[in-house]
Amino acid sequence: MITRPKVLLPKDRFFGPEARQKEIAQHLYASVAQLPLICPHGHVEPRLLGDPDYSFGTPTDLLLIPDHYVFRMLYSQGIPLERLGIPRRDVRESRPNAEAQVEQDHRRVWQIFAENFYLFRGTPTGIWFTHELRDVFGVEDKLTGESAQDIYDQIAACLAMPEFRPRRLYERFNIEVLTTTDAATDTLDYHRAIQESGWPARILPTFRPDSVVNLNTPGWGKHIETLGEVSGIEAVGYQTFIQALESRRAFFKKMGATATDHAAVTPYTTELSPQEADVIFQRALKGQATAEDATRFTGHMLMENARMSLEDGLVMQLHPGSYRDHNILIYERFGIAMGADIPVATEYTKNLHPLLNKYGNDTRLTLILFTLDETTYSRELAPLAGHYPALRLGPPWWFYDSPNGMVRFLEQVVETAGIYNTAGFNDDTRAYPSIPARHDLWRRVTCNWVAGLVARGLLDMDDAGEIVLDLAYRLAKRTYKFE
Amino acid sequence: MITRPKVLLPKDRFFGPEARQKEIAQHLYASVAQLPLICPHGHVEPRLLGDPDYSFGTPTDLLLIPDHYVFRMLYSQGIPLERLGIPRRDVRESRPNAEAQVEQDHRRVWQIFAENFYLFRGTPTGIWFTHELRDVFGVEDKLTGESAQDIYDQIAACLAMPEFRPRRLYERFNIEVLTTTDAATDTLDYHRAIQESGWPARILPTFRPDSVVNLNTPGWGKHIETLGEVSGIEAVGYQTFIQALESRRAFFKKMGATATDHAAVTPYTTELSPQEADVIFQRALKGQATAEDATRFTGHMLMENARMSLEDGLVMQLHPGSYRDHNILIYERFGIAMGADIPVATEYTKNLHPLLNKYGNDTRLTLILFTLDETTYSRELAPLAGHYPALRLGPPWWFYDSPNGMVRFLEQVVETAGIYNTAGFNDDTRAYPSIPARHDLWRRVTCNWVAGLVARGLLDMDDAGEIVLDLAYRLAKRTYKFE
Amino acid sequence: MITRPKVLLPKDRFFGPEARQKEIAQHLYASVAQLPLICPHGHVEPRLLGDPDYSFGTPTDLLLIPDHYVFRMLYSQGIPLERLGIPRRDVRESRPNAEAQVEQDHRRVWQIFAENFYLFRGTPTGIWFTHELRDVFGVEDKLTGESAQDIYDQIAACLAMPEFRPRRLYERFNIEVLTTTDAATDTLDYHRAIQESGWPARILPTFRPDSVVNLNTPGWGKHIETLGEVSGIEAVGYQTFIQALESRRAFFKKMGATATDHAAVTPYTTELSPQEADVIFQRALKGQATAEDATRFTGHMLMENARMSLEDGLVMQLHPGSYRDHNILIYERFGIAMGADIPVATEYTKNLHPLLNKYGNDTRLTLILFTLDETTYSRELAPLAGHYPALRLGPPWWFYDSPNGMVRFLEQVVETAGIYNTAGFNDDTRAYPSIPARHDLWRRVTCNWVAGLVARGLLDMDDAGEIVLDLAYRLAKRTYKFE
Repeated sequence: MITRPKVLLPKDRFFGPEARQKEIAQHLYASVAQLPLICPHGHVEPRLLGDPDYSFGTPTDLLLIPDHYVFRMLYSQGIPLERLGIPRRDVRESRPNAEAQVEQDHRRVWQIFAENFYLFRGTPTGIWFTHELRDVFGVEDKLTGESAQDIYDQIAACLAMPEFRPRRLYERFNIEVLTTTDAATDTLDYHRAIQESGWPARILPTFRPDSVVNLNTPGWGKHIETLGEVSGIEAVGYQTFIQALESRRAFFKKMGATATDHAAVTPYTTELSPQEADVIFQRALKGQATAEDATRFTGHMLMENARMSLEDGLVMQLHPGSYRDHNILIYERFGIAMGADIPVATEYTKNLHPLLNKYGNDTRLTLILFTLDETTYSRELAPLAGHYPALRLGPPWWFYDSPNGMVRFLEQVVETAGIYNTAGFNDDTRAYPSIPARHDLWRRVTCNWVAGLVARGLLDMDDAGEIVLDLAYRLAKRTYKFE
Repeated sequence: MITRPKVLLPKDRFFGPEARQKEIAQHLYASVAQLPLICPHGHVEPRLLGDPDYSFGTPTDLLLIPDHYVFRMLYSQGIPLERLGIPRRDVRESRPNAEAQVEQDHRRVWQIFAENFYLFRGTPTGIWFTHELRDVFGVEDKLTGESAQDIYDQIAACLAMPEFRPRRLYERFNIEVLTTTDAATDTLDYHRAIQESGWPARILPTFRPDSVVNLNTPGWGKHIETLGEVSGIEAVGYQTFIQALESRRAFFKKMGATATDHAAVTPYTTELSPQEADVIFQRALKGQATAEDATRFTGHMLMENARMSLEDGLVMQLHPGSYRDHNILIYERFGIAMGADIPVATEYTKNLHPLLNKYGNDTRLTLILFTLDETTYSRELAPLAGHYPALRLGPPWWFYDSPNGMVRFLEQVVETAGIYNTAGFNDDTRAYPSIPARHDLWRRVTCNWVAGLVARGLLDMDDAGEIVLDLAYRLAKRTYKFE
Repeated sequence: MITRPKVLLPKDRFFGPEARQKEIAQHLYASVAQLPLICPHGHVEPRLLGDPDYSFGTPTDLLLIPDHYVFRMLYSQGIPLERLGIPRRDVRESRPNAEAQVEQDHRRVWQIFAENFYLFRGTPTGIWFTHELRDVFGVEDKLTGESAQDIYDQIAACLAMPEFRPRRLYERFNIEVLTTTDAATDTLDYHRAIQESGWPARILPTFRPDSVVNLNTPGWGKHIETLGEVSGIEAVGYQTFIQALESRRAFFKKMGATATDHAAVTPYTTELSPQEADVIFQRALKGQATAEDATRFTGHMLMENARMSLEDGLVMQLHPGSYRDHNILIYERFGIAMGADIPVATEYTKNLHPLLNKYGNDTRLTLILFTLDETTYSRELAPLAGHYPALRLGPPWWFYDSPNGMVRFLEQVVETAGIYNTAGFNDDTRAYPSIPARHDLWRRVTCNWVAGLVARGLLDMDDAGEIVLDLAYRLAKRTYKFE
């Protein structure tokens, strides 16, 4: 019998090979490896933790179907999403036969994935997945077509055990606080259920009002109606709209939220008079808002949300620069977040000028900027964050949540903005069991980077020890006001 | 007698200095160093290989005069192109004395070059040149003003020998397949001559229709006439133009072509109706096309060529982003490709949206994207190629075909798109004897980069061994359909 | 008694940890460490060296209040500039109480700085400061809240000694030539005083005409008046304006200037007819110039200054891409250069096309380009400088004058443009005692970078030795015509 190849997950992984730097990196890593996880931004479904009967389903349900990092790569090599078991949303609408094309046999989906797992060589998704399989599910064999079904069995066996329920994993992962991301209209029932369950975990909502402030959101009118229902304030005009939003922010804050989150194609900001805002809002209610209306209103609402954050203390996050649903066919068949969101060049210096001049000098505001355009790290973001008291820089986002992406961030940001204008790490994931792998990657990469500074005489070990603690734990906790 | 300094070309060149990584790199390199060369995109003149009596001329004819990588650097330091023997194209037209300014003594040109060879310290051109002199011509002395004439003699002696005829070098270089780049109107006579000669080499044409699809090409009307002559289909309107193009594609395919190539200042794509396209085409025939007509027609023709590629299977290459002939004086005196083509910022996400939405999900299409704007590697190209089945990314192009350029490409592309959405290497050169040096550089740099992944625990040796084979040989062969 | 922590400033700092590369780096560094300093661009006040009675004042006066690199970081963390002793310029105008808010106790300012010095961990400002404290003032303790007052005492004691007068430091720093940056209207009295004092130092002015050529400069009309007074040529129209400028250039040249310097938000160039230029100039005199007028006039004046440089031989420097005074509140309270200048994306290929086509082929012109947009290094600047004889590239500017910034510059520029199209180093500082630290950083980083090329077999030691001399000393001296 042939021994199957084993996974590679060495203890000194992600550390540079030079002996002295590696020794320092290992020393630093030892001081942070076991710290609790601070998860201030992510996309885990609240239901996972709110519903005590929640089951992860099959290994394919848990690990493949919800993770666009995984299936986008397979799709890019010509494997249809239907063969990967991704449900079509257009089934009942117009194409009754579409459902038949979706693979229902999760073992077959897993087999396809395993046979193509080599595509992830050298990618962070490959690294997270390997880490996750071994450390969460105890898988020692390398994932290949040959080992696929045995590994499927092993994961499925785990998932049948009570120790693999979401709440037990939360404890095992040593999470100190985990935030979800929730629509402004969300009633936060699962959050309430968690709080009322007596389970002493800290699961907090985050207020994300995109679908009501971005006028070109599909179904915007419907969202505004819902906003009226859940807030008890019908948004018949701009003034009541603001009141409804403020009411929702207060509700989220009462439910534990410490932050809001905002997406926009650009970080454009502008200030409208209440009259101008109302005219646009009224046009939108009639379904007559123009593209320019939407742009200006979104830009104005970023400023309004900054103003509200000054007042209620919620930390404001801005995630601009994604051209969402670039592939229309995929959007129509499968919906949003299907791996077809593509970055565009993003400008911050001019776009944020109105907001920063009005609120950027006020230390009551914390505005965390993220980017999908790495050229802005050294050119715009670090100079801005190295000056305005209200600004902090979020960690490398999305495609850049990777060993090279993290190093590029650190090397291009820190020299100008320092460590202390950054916001530490967040995992930003919807792949719940990948959380420890992602934090571990960040901790290893930052320790190795700091070790490089020490090895080149740029930092002493005392400062290095402080920095790795800050990056691994303290900065996220402080910036998001979890203290 | 003083010993002249010798060239530096150590066996472990381009590998990092750390012992373990270097050992891995050397091990990996040993597995790919001797593989045949796949040359799927380049600018070698077909006549070199098609005309059995072809002579390279003097060392200056072979190595300096045709290579704008070389003479641009000397020009930048104030040495007129005339002194470098570059022929003026304006001689007979208006300036009868211009010819007299062009240095005719190739030994003197070589002397100037040698005395200024220090300008290439730290550049890939310096590296290729040194490699080429030693490995192709056996030159052991460092090129300086003092050694210049002896080295000239040594190269000239080589060039007089039958072993240094182009076809013999093709065999010595271990080239498996070499493509040229040919105008849509080219009759491919040299390709036919090679095929009929019985010489068992694989020299294939590539279909490049820029001069007939870009309406602002100087002499466009003349090119359209020629297109009619060679295709037998007179392009009197848009419909016949398309028929003529399809006829040429079929001819190129019959002659062995597996690919097309397209340049444009931007990768802008748009779809015109046949009526709109015809209106613009008719205006162009009358010499009345506007700049906007040209932009829209080029954008439309990129889509049309993608449609044709779907149908005939020719791989489509797109090389955008060069501001050609930036220096008007140089263009007027010496013509095109004189080292004055300067990159501009390039946008792919929005520009390719029409093309990708129409054809990007179709696995019959292979569209290989190149860039002169490295900011798009991580921001646009890797996310696009990591999603759309039709897309692949070409290797670092032109100015980036260098040790640092290759590393930047790999580090910014692979984490998002993986190895398998790249198209391997191509040398893209018109400097025929530099081909082995360029492939060797790529192989060494990729092996060292992969060794770094292994040394940091990101890859196991089995995967590393596969990747270096893929990058050195298999990906180019597969992507360009040479299998 | 507890021993206080000592500063870290190892002899091998900034060199990579790998043994062989470090050995080469140290060997190379030994050959350049003691070379005199060439300072061809900077912002040291001429009064420092021109007024023999000049006193630096307190440690806070010298090291904190004038240095926006320092106080911007503290401000970004919520410390008001008033608490840092930064004088308000709006005191007498409208806010009589503003002055009271400015901390007058320089020991308290120093204490705040010291307690927050950890913010500079990993930044070049932290590195310069530490180097400066130890090597200029002999401070061995690490700067912390605890050591703050003792260090203050130590520096104050130094500053009271004659050896710490500016002229003595000039000699101790081994400066060979130092240029200042001076308005076109400056009478250069301090430069004259230096020349007449018999002190054999080489302190040269640089001609910076921004305030008279950029029509939207606050108080432009007043500057034009002053220009008339100092030149004796009243600028009543475009023609006399040019004459006045030429007269000032001649004066600066007579006073030793070898260069001019130009800032602009973009490097846009365009050529106006004398008539067009005069129409705009007349509108500006009446206070009626539009924003477009200002843009076109600035673009035209860049070309005019290039024309003048051809004629008088002054080296032309261009520093574009800064959005000055982004924070209006800070500008109104404290004035310009307060750490709120933020870079914007910058385009060179198209913008410089008019200027380069008119003057770029002329070897009498030297135009040194700088950038705050690192994406242009490989995409635009290196290809342009690797072609046009008139172009050279300035060293990494402002935010990029740092270990990583320098490496990015070298790695992205040299492969295309070579070493010899760069202009060596300049410290660009207004922080006089930081000059040796800045040059030392550059010399160490470049030696380590060159050592990396040697260690990877890309350069031999002879060439490496030449390059480090060029980068440390010769290129700046030659490019700025100090020979």
